[in-house]
Amino acid sequence: MSTDADISARHTEKMKKIKAARDRLMENKTEEKGLIMVHTGPGKGKSSSGFGMIMRCISHGMPTAVVQFIKGAWATGERDFLETHFKDECKFYVSGEGFTWETQDRDRDIAKAEAGWELAKQLIRDESNRFVLLDEINIALRNDYLNIDEVVEFLLEEKPMMTHVCLTGRNAKPELIEAADLVTEMTLVKHPFRDGIKAQKGVEF
Amino acid sequence: MSTDADISARHTEKMKKIKAARDRLMENKTEEKGLIMVHTGPGKGKSSSGFGMIMRCISHGMPTAVVQFIKGAWATGERDFLETHFKDECKFYVSGEGFTWETQDRDRDIAKAEAGWELAKQLIRDESNRFVLLDEINIALRNDYLNIDEVVEFLLEEKPMMTHVCLTGRNAKPELIEAADLVTEMTLVKHPFRDGIKAQKGVEF
Repeated sequence: MSTDADISARHTEKMKKIKAARDRLMENKTEEKGLIMVHTGPGKGKSSSGFGMIMRCISHGMPTAVVQFIKGAWATGERDFLETHFKDECKFYVSGEGFTWETQDRDRDIAKAEAGWELAKQLIRDESNRFVLLDEINIALRNDYLNIDEVVEFLLEEKPMMTHVCLTGRNAKPELIEAADLVTEMTLVKHPFRDGIKAQKGVEF
Repeated sequence: MSTDADISARHTEKMKKIKAARDRLMENKTEEKGLIMVHTGPGKGKSSSGFGMIMRCISHGMPTAVVQFIKGAWATGERDFLETHFKDECKFYVSGEGFTWETQDRDRDIAKAEAGWELAKQLIRDESNRFVLLDEINIALRNDYLNIDEVVEFLLEEKPMMTHVCLTGRNAKPELIEAADLVTEMTLVKHPFRDGIKAQKGVEF
């Protein structure tokens, strides 16, 4: 029979081994570089984790910028928050006019997406911006409002070495996933919409 | 051959149908209630999207609280950020002392986790807190530092109706997933650690 002391001793031994393995692993991880990050998938958290990173960057004194490609029509908490409190630390632009099924006007959607992308390029080229969030750009790419090859080529060739760029939205194109350094897929395990619960303040917007 | 006008007309038609279907779907979604949310899985974004929701809540004037169960030992951007700028809007507590492989002391880990959970219960019982983030609590649950049945029972029976609680960390226990309203699994598609890139400011902490 195991005593509490046995359990604690085994735990300490196991944790020592994990720590040693982890220290060996991390020894080789010395490089820093700006990452191309993609948040995709049908689950929650794609945009909100982008904004969580903006919070981290502001705290570390790293200038940030946001271009919202689709969500422009409705006020979001994150937009009000950053525009109210952190106008200097985070440049916030909106190019979209709501979800694509709201506008029902393809030409206007394309023009808005292109204007957003021009702005995004300027922000990324400006090395003083250390983190640029292209929120919901994957929707614009998926609808072919923007050319995926042009976007990928720009990111690989013109993004300054130390700048992080985070691209969010469902259905990220394979070309973008191929080019990215860090890709996370948010998977929906369970969602309360199924039970008649509507989108709520603080959670979804 | 399709002209541009044809493409635009078909697009408008398709978007109208999507909008109609979506409007019908959303008609039934009228209820608001505080959600039990779980962010789990090996991918990035579990904590950062929790903090993104804190940003949204602050913007909407909803008081928030955070208990960090594991990450206490090292300073994080989000902690500095909230403690510096939003002391009134977000009560921030740390119960953990770093990753479990760093402490190598099971009894101390258990005591810290229990203290964190006591605090969490107080914060959740206080209806003035509209959103409570239990960051990395899944690690404490997975290591059996906390009793999963007690945690689930508390959430289902004592959480005030309108309070959102978000629990993060890998390997969420099945009992918690069963009890939750909204569960997202962050899946790792690609990670730069593989290429020798270390954890970086603004991105990971």
